[in-house]
Amino acid sequence: MRNEEGLRVIEIKKSVYEDNDREAQQLRQELREKGCFLLNLMSSPGAGKTTLLSQTMQRLPVGLSRAVMEADIDSDVDARRISEIGVPVSQLHTGGMCHLDAGMTRQGLASLEGDYGLVVLENVGNLVCPAEFDTGAALNVCILSVPEGDDKPLKYPLMFEVCDAVLINKIDVLDYFDFDLERCKEGIRMRNPKAEIFEVCAKSGLGIIEWCSWLEGKIEAWKEA
Amino acid sequence: MRNEEGLRVIEIKKSVYEDNDREAQQLRQELREKGCFLLNLMSSPGAGKTTLLSQTMQRLPVGLSRAVMEADIDSDVDARRISEIGVPVSQLHTGGMCHLDAGMTRQGLASLEGDYGLVVLENVGNLVCPAEFDTGAALNVCILSVPEGDDKPLKYPLMFEVCDAVLINKIDVLDYFDFDLERCKEGIRMRNPKAEIFEVCAKSGLGIIEWCSWLEGKIEAWKEA
Repeated sequence: MRNEEGLRVIEIKKSVYEDNDREAQQLRQELREKGCFLLNLMSSPGAGKTTLLSQTMQRLPVGLSRAVMEADIDSDVDARRISEIGVPVSQLHTGGMCHLDAGMTRQGLASLEGDYGLVVLENVGNLVCPAEFDTGAALNVCILSVPEGDDKPLKYPLMFEVCDAVLINKIDVLDYFDFDLERCKEGIRMRNPKAEIFEVCAKSGLGIIEWCSWLEGKIEAWKEA
Repeated sequence: MRNEEGLRVIEIKKSVYEDNDREAQQLRQELREKGCFLLNLMSSPGAGKTTLLSQTMQRLPVGLSRAVMEADIDSDVDARRISEIGVPVSQLHTGGMCHLDAGMTRQGLASLEGDYGLVVLENVGNLVCPAEFDTGAALNVCILSVPEGDDKPLKYPLMFEVCDAVLINKIDVLDYFDFDLERCKEGIRMRNPKAEIFEVCAKSGLGIIEWCSWLEGKIEAWKEA
């Protein structure tokens, strides 16, 4: 399904990708030197990124300094929610862009005052484009919520391929939707056998301890590497 | 939130948009001459496009010849579902692209055998990029499902600005989510005072008759224009 126009767009994107990959690699190195673990959180619109983030920020160990960057096309709804729990937050407006790239992430980091051991980037709600742009993060995580359907790993391959963990969220409404948990997990494993899978309900806090323990382990291992 | 890299990407996209707008306008004219009404259906992943489409295809008047184009990055899950109800369907793979443009839509139309009074394009599940590319459609419709949250019109402005109608889907699970129907409608009206709003449950068929009647009226008015 590629015509002349389509191919041309793809060629343009290819060079954008290469430039971005270089910049992401450089940012990742700089963050390592500073001891700042960057987590890139991605999902469809409304899958529960902000709620999950709010829970996560409140349950990680006290000694870990933390901040959040909220990327949105418009509005500051999410930044206000994070601010309410007392975590430093920076609102990034993408100016219509459907994803963050490494350069935009770098600008976002500069806008945070102070140094942090963990910064979480809440990417634009989009299951397609953010997966194409390396932000320089040490860890990529995706949320898939039950109401979206268990077929998403089949239909949006790249997102599941690039993620280190997938959180299946809104597990509390499983009974109200045609969602086969095993079929979903099979789909995720088909795309990415190494991806860690968590079942959570960000709203009630179910499964958040397991997820936070795993994340803490990842940050510790990263520090020692 | 624009750096040098960001601006460059935007410049590239701008010329792509202009080329696409021209091609979309030409395609729209050709479709008018052929008497083919093209509907572009957009939403986040998992908002219920295929279920809504299946219901719609089965409830429109018998005399209206119809076909469907399913645009996906990968898989043919949706095309198989539409094929099962006996409606001609063409599966378009976008090769990783996050939206359809007018050129890809034209290729999709060419792949459908025969002439139809109505063709529905199910766009890639994405609340951002498809809104940026005119496909040449006579009507743009977006689905917003209750589990996604009532703040989506605030966070994804362009999608709601370009749509002629918004279908609020999965209205049956309203009790299980923090979703304020009035706040959602206010948000839609703020973005687009002319957009028609329908409350539906595509799974059970609730509200589908009202939506189909409205669509039928739109097709009739278009024919007479």
